[in-house]
Amino acid sequence: MPTPRSPYYAVIFSSQRTARDDGYSEMAQRMEELGSQQPGFLGIDSVRDANGRGITVSYWSDLESIRAWRDVAEHKVAQAKGRSVWYESYEIRICRVEAESAFRTSGDGAP
Amino acid sequence: MPTPRSPYYAVIFSSQRTARDDGYSEMAQRMEELGSQQPGFLGIDSVRDANGRGITVSYWSDLESIRAWRDVAEHKVAQAKGRSVWYESYEIRICRVEAESAFRTSGDGAP
Repeated sequence: MPTPRSPYYAVIFSSQRTARDDGYSEMAQRMEELGSQQPGFLGIDSVRDANGRGITVSYWSDLESIRAWRDVAEHKVAQAKGRSVWYESYEIRICRVEAESAFRTSGDGAP
Repeated sequence: MPTPRSPYYAVIFSSQRTARDDGYSEMAQRMEELGSQQPGFLGIDSVRDANGRGITVSYWSDLESIRAWRDVAEHKVAQAKGRSVWYESYEIRICRVEAESAFRTSGDGAP
């Protein structure tokens, strides 16, 4: 995701999926769509491996935006179903981003 | 990873691997081993998907420990080879963890 001027905030969501699908992909896509329309949303990075272990980091301009997104009704329904069906375990960490750096290769593969 | 009392620090390393192996797995394992022996190291979570997109989050007690790990000689060699061979792109963000919560299912699969 693009890198705004720090400080801004990150929500680190580390999770272990269950084996049950039951609408998971649709929910995940819908939550990404809905979340990205929220005030204060800056970007999202999400990776899940073949064993169902995932890390999603969403970025926000301030803590109030994170709280507001947490309390969106449709998101709360997804959170509840996450606990009852989709996730074996998860951890959520709210962080203040204090510094950042980035690296991109040039077109020819050299740094 | 276990959740210490906040505040503590997180380093979010989001990366895209190249297709080149050339010792990548050995390096990744060695860096996790070496990093976990550093003063101030608290834990690590790492996920990479089949497309080579990865997020690794390491947790530290303070910024000084993060700086010290960045400057360890063997780690600096790995960083340089990361830029020339293993990573197409990456972003590093240093964050202060301000709040956290966790969820675990009970043994019978119910929350």
